[in-house]
Amino acid sequence: KPLGSDWDRWFMMGLIGVFVGIFGFLMHQIIDFLFEMKWELVENYIQNNDFLTTWMVIAGIGFAMMLVSSGLVVFFCPSGSPSGLPEVIGYLNGASIRHIFNIRTFFGSFFSCALAVSAGLFCGPEAPMIHVGAAIGCGLSQFKSDTLRINLPFFTRFRNSADKRQFITAGAAAGIASVFRAPVGGLLFVLEEVASFWDVKLAWQTFFCCLVATFTTEVLSSSFVGFEYEGYFGFFKAEQRIIFWVKDLLNISVLAVIPTIILGIIGGLLGALFVFINVRINKLRMKIFTSVPHKFLRQLTKLLDTLLILVVTITVTVYIPYFFSCSPNPTASQVQNASEHKPHGEHAAWDVSEYNCPPGSSWVAPNGSIMANHSINQAAVLLVKNGKQGTMLLYQRGSHEKFGLPALLMALIFYFTISCWTAGTAAGTGLVVPMVYTGALFGRLVGLIMVAMFGVQTDEYGAWIDPGLFAVIGSAAYFGGVTRLTISLTVIMVEITNDVQSILLIMIAVLVGKTVGDYFNNSLFSSLLHLKCIPYLKAVPNVVHGKKKVNLELFTARDVMQSCTTIHLQENVFLLAELLSTTSHNGFPVVFSPAPGQEEVFLGTITRLELYMLLSNSRVFQTPENNQCSSVLKYQEVTVEKLPDEAQINRLLNKYSADPQYQQLFINLEPYINKSAVSVQAHFSLQRTYVVFRTLGLRHLTVVDLQNRAVGIITRKDLISLRLEKKLIQMDRGKLDSDEELLN
Amino acid sequence: KPLGSDWDRWFMMGLIGVFVGIFGFLMHQIIDFLFEMKWELVENYIQNNDFLTTWMVIAGIGFAMMLVSSGLVVFFCPSGSPSGLPEVIGYLNGASIRHIFNIRTFFGSFFSCALAVSAGLFCGPEAPMIHVGAAIGCGLSQFKSDTLRINLPFFTRFRNSADKRQFITAGAAAGIASVFRAPVGGLLFVLEEVASFWDVKLAWQTFFCCLVATFTTEVLSSSFVGFEYEGYFGFFKAEQRIIFWVKDLLNISVLAVIPTIILGIIGGLLGALFVFINVRINKLRMKIFTSVPHKFLRQLTKLLDTLLILVVTITVTVYIPYFFSCSPNPTASQVQNASEHKPHGEHAAWDVSEYNCPPGSSWVAPNGSIMANHSINQAAVLLVKNGKQGTMLLYQRGSHEKFGLPALLMALIFYFTISCWTAGTAAGTGLVVPMVYTGALFGRLVGLIMVAMFGVQTDEYGAWIDPGLFAVIGSAAYFGGVTRLTISLTVIMVEITNDVQSILLIMIAVLVGKTVGDYFNNSLFSSLLHLKCIPYLKAVPNVVHGKKKVNLELFTARDVMQSCTTIHLQENVFLLAELLSTTSHNGFPVVFSPAPGQEEVFLGTITRLELYMLLSNSRVFQTPENNQCSSVLKYQEVTVEKLPDEAQINRLLNKYSADPQYQQLFINLEPYINKSAVSVQAHFSLQRTYVVFRTLGLRHLTVVDLQNRAVGIITRKDLISLRLEKKLIQMDRGKLDSDEELLN
Repeated sequence: KPLGSDWDRWFMMGLIGVFVGIFGFLMHQIIDFLFEMKWELVENYIQNNDFLTTWMVIAGIGFAMMLVSSGLVVFFCPSGSPSGLPEVIGYLNGASIRHIFNIRTFFGSFFSCALAVSAGLFCGPEAPMIHVGAAIGCGLSQFKSDTLRINLPFFTRFRNSADKRQFITAGAAAGIASVFRAPVGGLLFVLEEVASFWDVKLAWQTFFCCLVATFTTEVLSSSFVGFEYEGYFGFFKAEQRIIFWVKDLLNISVLAVIPTIILGIIGGLLGALFVFINVRINKLRMKIFTSVPHKFLRQLTKLLDTLLILVVTITVTVYIPYFFSCSPNPTASQVQNASEHKPHGEHAAWDVSEYNCPPGSSWVAPNGSIMANHSINQAAVLLVKNGKQGTMLLYQRGSHEKFGLPALLMALIFYFTISCWTAGTAAGTGLVVPMVYTGALFGRLVGLIMVAMFGVQTDEYGAWIDPGLFAVIGSAAYFGGVTRLTISLTVIMVEITNDVQSILLIMIAVLVGKTVGDYFNNSLFSSLLHLKCIPYLKAVPNVVHGKKKVNLELFTARDVMQSCTTIHLQENVFLLAELLSTTSHNGFPVVFSPAPGQEEVFLGTITRLELYMLLSNSRVFQTPENNQCSSVLKYQEVTVEKLPDEAQINRLLNKYSADPQYQQLFINLEPYINKSAVSVQAHFSLQRTYVVFRTLGLRHLTVVDLQNRAVGIITRKDLISLRLEKKLIQMDRGKLDSDEELLN
Repeated sequence: KPLGSDWDRWFMMGLIGVFVGIFGFLMHQIIDFLFEMKWELVENYIQNNDFLTTWMVIAGIGFAMMLVSSGLVVFFCPSGSPSGLPEVIGYLNGASIRHIFNIRTFFGSFFSCALAVSAGLFCGPEAPMIHVGAAIGCGLSQFKSDTLRINLPFFTRFRNSADKRQFITAGAAAGIASVFRAPVGGLLFVLEEVASFWDVKLAWQTFFCCLVATFTTEVLSSSFVGFEYEGYFGFFKAEQRIIFWVKDLLNISVLAVIPTIILGIIGGLLGALFVFINVRINKLRMKIFTSVPHKFLRQLTKLLDTLLILVVTITVTVYIPYFFSCSPNPTASQVQNASEHKPHGEHAAWDVSEYNCPPGSSWVAPNGSIMANHSINQAAVLLVKNGKQGTMLLYQRGSHEKFGLPALLMALIFYFTISCWTAGTAAGTGLVVPMVYTGALFGRLVGLIMVAMFGVQTDEYGAWIDPGLFAVIGSAAYFGGVTRLTISLTVIMVEITNDVQSILLIMIAVLVGKTVGDYFNNSLFSSLLHLKCIPYLKAVPNVVHGKKKVNLELFTARDVMQSCTTIHLQENVFLLAELLSTTSHNGFPVVFSPAPGQEEVFLGTITRLELYMLLSNSRVFQTPENNQCSSVLKYQEVTVEKLPDEAQINRLLNKYSADPQYQQLFINLEPYINKSAVSVQAHFSLQRTYVVFRTLGLRHLTVVDLQNRAVGIITRKDLISLRLEKKLIQMDRGKLDSDEELLN
């Protein structure tokens, strides 16, 4: 009978869910509000074909927004660069990254993202929302903030890194769940890509957290549209809830697999190309920024990059529609029906998709439906509208020829290149919306080609040749090609479209996209982790030398270990202080002799922080005569996450290493060391060592010899693929080239 | 750049998918065919109110089917009992269970299940299909069969337990994917409940396997309905593909959360009750069976149990509708429309839901839709129809009062009790359909009560008060209450209904159902694992003493280890043979002295099988003089999964331990031992020891002292909760009662 006494953990998960849900709601509403407001200002100019004024107004507003958005990241966030998904992934893998969950980073990310999307950059709010969710998970669960100097006496039992990591995982999942209204998709996204460690219990709690977050967002969004009160509080419409709702499920022929595979291949190729170009651009960016000497100038350069992107984006957005003529809107009556449900006051009549086209009129047909002769500017619809609304239009079924080849092709080219340039700039930008949208564009393009080949099919057996269906598949393929996700991507696609019927096609597209992409390079997140030098340990080591996988069974733990500085069980305060000042290790093996005269053997480990805490409590100091074994300090006093006062400790260390009196004082470390520290023998195969280290989630692994004497230590950095590769190359070329099949 | 040279693994996954898909298709078709055939035979008798003849025919056919079905399990399967999900779960956890993937078990399970469902038992084909899938994964990947004496020279690199486990995992997932047409749900089900070890790579491959399996089932099913060729090959209709397709998504008010929570609580209570009663029944069954002395008599008793269940089931099914009068069918025109798509030849006109009611007539109304005055026997619809078809009717939206309270309540009571008795009998029976159906019954019941309270709502804001919606939620709640699944259950529910709109309600119901159920007892699978004495290691130890969780940090590895028999690096053949004959250990620590005169330290481990293989190759024997270190046998010759010839090895062992000449022969074990075997220190905390053992998926863990001398060994059995509990109770009552919060 399982006894669940974890009510506080569930409560905290719920609380995190509520807060993430609120911020998800705010993000949506701010973006909707600002975006709409911006375009309503220029309505008259566009309709009078006054492109210059339009450009000036849109660019001016965008400029102001981006100035704040980018300024927040550059000047306000402590790290000075947008923290996003790679940092969260790295943190959950065990890397220590500073400032990512700081309260300033949190607000910086949130508003920077909201403004960047509103300004009209080709980006979406997803990745920043994951980060915002993770930050809420981190901050809320700790019930304290160093920046705000708050330290509340609640839920103190969660103040340890293991629990913190769990809440961060849940918060990140809730972030994506809230923004997509896809609770299960968010959860799976985090399990597949973000979290390195998880168990079923955490999965359940995250499930709950995602549920609460989505629910909160739903309830709040149900009554507001772009901050206007609409009066349907607590009434979830399918139309609003399922963000890209596909209403007509199509009966699909098995022949649809052929274009699906083609789309998968295109998605994989484009995805790999995106990763390739984006990584190059970001490398170039880094190179330029680091070449600027002065800090303030560097910050200005970053700001300039963002503003330049904005100007280009706005220019494309405003002027390209100029070259396109108006075309009739075949789904006008549908659009009218939909807008009936969302009365926007007097402005409801104008839709930015009409752009500079003559305003049409609408009338009620004899059969009761609303007819209209509105015309649209295809390019305006595709470029000007927010990626989210654009995707909705592209996914629409039964609108075979709403968008023509030229408009789709043009939008694809601009969206692909500009979003590629945008990703990684100094503002909170997410990539999911551009990915979904770019995919939908080329998916619809392929669909259009099929329609051109086979005509608009009206009978039951040909109805599946619908560009709307292929837009969905294209999104999945491109998303898969860039991120190399599979399971979570499929679930997200189903949750946002409600199209279980095409799940098999989506799965095929995702798998083909991933396979093709993997042939060329690593996934975007993996590449960015590498680029940002975050020490990420994969579940299985993958060391490549000259296009061949190196067989780590041929190497031993001894080959990669560093020599270690051991500490004695009874250690001199003077020596300890000196050790801490002169080395930078974070963990130390503690050794002792089981019997007088015998050699010292490995007993356990102690961390630098624990030593600091011990040294700052002079109560634990003993003279050699007065040697007692009992614990003087409590576990909580020694095991902390962060030093309370770094400066003071440094002063103390200096005092100890200067004053000879401390050479006579000892600390008995026995009660404080971790005696259950796993060690490996020096002759262990490197493969096994890696697996032990990664699977158990260690930070330090002591290497011992056959008599259990500590001979070395292995840390996270020693096991990163690149470093392993270098180290092994230096050592032995012969073994590297040997065929890995030998042992299999 | 990731280099995927795993094409053979992907190919094998695809192959497994194809085969599982074919068997899933066959399972569906056999059941549909036999079930329909059976009822068509009695059409005339029912319509003439001749219940006795109906009963005799149905019971007679059922009797014959059950005789074969149960006979296959009892007499044909080697284990003599139905192997199902618990065995697969245990196997994938690392327990060794004999015969589960045997070819006879495979065919026995498959046909037994098909016949049991066709005979009319209240069970479904899901759990046996998981088992069939796992068996296909196991058998196909090995390309050999001991029973059939086949050993093909392909894919030999998969003949090891790690790869085999992966293919079994994939096969099991494909089984559930195929039977539900829910590829992602199947995958997640296996990840959440079935597999103990998995990584992202395996998840991708399983994803592919599930995709192929579902696709194969789809393609084959698209052209056949109950083995009748229908001529739509390769055309996937949404109607057929999504098994419980909900066509009308409802706008839902936040108030729906209240009945959802009520349904969750009922589901949890009923689920816990089901587990409680089912475990009691199965215990009783075991007790009765073991009390029967003779093997044949025992088999007969098992058969009798199954036949008794059948007779009761058939009696209820045939006679209960007798007490219900006919009622008009409010959805007749819809039913007519649906059946248009599936012309069944001349028999299409009669539907078993009409039962003994007067045949109605149908006509085409002026507006083109088909009207009908068919009447139905509610009880017949609910009891006689296969649970799958029944669920479809219960989920139907807009049929508020199709089923009345008495019929629903009656069906609920009988379905609950009889399915509870059925589960665990000697036939291949699955529980998912009964769970889904029972849940739908009480969900609809609650929905009906709500309709009675608030009336049939016709306006937009009240449309969500639809018994069809609550039937879906009830299914999720009860399913959650019995199995305690969350994520996979939600995804399965969405995949089978295509109702993303109610995903939040489903999630709430699932979580509440799980929480309420967990308050009372363990999940069904966990209880069955316990009942069947399968040594299952949970991810986190959970030892309970007197309603309190025991803090394993207070115990050490020494407390649970067994004393071990060590082997020397240079070991005498005579002693080895004797050791193998007199002990039953499966792993032995190998020790040696690093230098003459020093104490022997732990170097690595060797398994019993490896020792057998070494002993059966006299080439490796050496005299003390002729001592060479190089490997004589290849890795593949020594590391096998199964002994090639047990009898011969036993003869050899007897020879070695009898003949003194072998006292002079040695084996140098050095090249054959596993030198990367993890060991723990005797003072390691038990919690840590457990985590190391379980996380690394070990079978033996050597315990060493501070000088690295082997002092004991820990095996899987030493760590099972129950045994741990007993051992720790004997040792120290004080520590057990200490509050676990102390250390936190």
